[in-house]
Amino acid sequence: MARIVIHEVGPRDGLQMEKQVVAIETKEAWIRAVMASGVDIVQVGSFVHPEKVPQMADTDELFRRLTRDKTSPTVLSGLVLNEKGLERGLACGVEMFCMGASASETHSSKNTGMGTEEATRRIIGAARQAVAAGKKVQVSVQSAFGCGFEGPIPQERVLGMVRAYLEAGLGSISLADTAGHGQPAQVERLFGAIRELDPAVELTCHFHNTYGLGMANIFAAVRSGVTSFETSFAGLGGCPFTKVAAGNVATEDFVHALHLQGLRTDVDLDRLLGVARDVAAHFGRDLQGFVYKIGPIPTKEHA
Amino acid sequence: MARIVIHEVGPRDGLQMEKQVVAIETKEAWIRAVMASGVDIVQVGSFVHPEKVPQMADTDELFRRLTRDKTSPTVLSGLVLNEKGLERGLACGVEMFCMGASASETHSSKNTGMGTEEATRRIIGAARQAVAAGKKVQVSVQSAFGCGFEGPIPQERVLGMVRAYLEAGLGSISLADTAGHGQPAQVERLFGAIRELDPAVELTCHFHNTYGLGMANIFAAVRSGVTSFETSFAGLGGCPFTKVAAGNVATEDFVHALHLQGLRTDVDLDRLLGVARDVAAHFGRDLQGFVYKIGPIPTKEHA
Repeated sequence: MARIVIHEVGPRDGLQMEKQVVAIETKEAWIRAVMASGVDIVQVGSFVHPEKVPQMADTDELFRRLTRDKTSPTVLSGLVLNEKGLERGLACGVEMFCMGASASETHSSKNTGMGTEEATRRIIGAARQAVAAGKKVQVSVQSAFGCGFEGPIPQERVLGMVRAYLEAGLGSISLADTAGHGQPAQVERLFGAIRELDPAVELTCHFHNTYGLGMANIFAAVRSGVTSFETSFAGLGGCPFTKVAAGNVATEDFVHALHLQGLRTDVDLDRLLGVARDVAAHFGRDLQGFVYKIGPIPTKEHA
Repeated sequence: MARIVIHEVGPRDGLQMEKQVVAIETKEAWIRAVMASGVDIVQVGSFVHPEKVPQMADTDELFRRLTRDKTSPTVLSGLVLNEKGLERGLACGVEMFCMGASASETHSSKNTGMGTEEATRRIIGAARQAVAAGKKVQVSVQSAFGCGFEGPIPQERVLGMVRAYLEAGLGSISLADTAGHGQPAQVERLFGAIRELDPAVELTCHFHNTYGLGMANIFAAVRSGVTSFETSFAGLGGCPFTKVAAGNVATEDFVHALHLQGLRTDVDLDRLLGVARDVAAHFGRDLQGFVYKIGPIPTKEHA
């Protein structure tokens, strides 16, 4: 079984959904603790217009602070939506660029003013620039499992975008379940179809827990050969299409489950649980994670 | 794929964990609504000493009310712990008896004053009596996936109990993850091993969501050939070994997920969502279910 890669997206996907803007010092402390736990990748923030998403206005400065004298092997990723974001990211030390387009025409238009095809072309252009600059790049298909506006998304639409990425030489691909509509059988079918297109593709998944299926979908993805998992501390995060808070799968819950299988025991779960508790205390409410509230299973393996 | 059977255990496993004793009229209304939804089996209550578990003191009367002039095809099950409970259940109209013993010596001793082997023998005796009385019977292994007292439970202990059940002619077997320690790979391994013992065995699973893995374990069980699923309205329920509320998987969340796959679309999800909302309103707090809060995915299939 291939090594499972954990990509903590709480500082971006979690914090962008919170009304409260978190101070840069607090973000930095949380991110440094996640890095110290041995998590492979941390998504520090996104490069969007600071007036549109004030929670992410400090992303450039945060990258500068974290990359100054950096010795940790944890890769620092940033989400960019366009060429302007790429430029900012290249200037402040982003190590891995994440960028994508939506398989839903409606979602794509609302987010970017472009349809899926045009948005995909633009993202491919930006991704190639990042590759040319020597950066790691991951391209994504948003709303890959269904859309709050459009409902079901035909698998062929998703595969069309994936083909375009692969033909452009972009072999690290993430499918995001933006609205949380995915279910395990669909997850296996879709990732299986992508691996048939290119068995060497590096696959990442990103599931929202809107309907309680996040963790089930993650394990369906594990079985489908997905090796990289985007999760969020304490389960923070949400989806703009839903009426209630519906977070990501909690990073520490996933790591806890992996430890039960003897996987990724190099990641320091206690440290991740500490981060989750700090995040929950900061926002002063119960978040969706389970293990940070109750502690890990007190088996001999964990003693 | 075999038909998936849904066994609603909220009236027993959910309500027994609540401090508040729910009035018999309220229980009856919830159970009748679940029956009307087309769920296959409802666990009405357990036959325990009324002073020990006052929440279940009305189980006999509840069965009498529900079986008087019954026309619904939904099977009404009752949990019995011993011969005395069996006697009560036979007298009040129980249609299916659920009974079991714990694979954990410590858990077994605390619950019954007997070790695993003796408790299993006693349960087999009672189960045979129920079969002789013409009743459906399901026998279970509690703490099959780990124990809050003992930690990991060796698979061979579980298989030993299953062998004893099978040799006694008891072919409907449930594994209960009493403490919520199960994880998907273990679920597949354990149920797979049981199907090797007897490919014709009817398998049921019962998962607690203590560590966030309930739904992932359910889908692992689906893949392992398990056909019957014990779940609880609104995710009500808990495990006495845990410090925080940690319910069952919510029945309506599971049915919602099945509907996304085109399975069990004969079950009336709207009615189940109504029950879950009623239960949550009754207790006046957020329960663990997801879909009752947000509503089902608004796809064309659900319009």
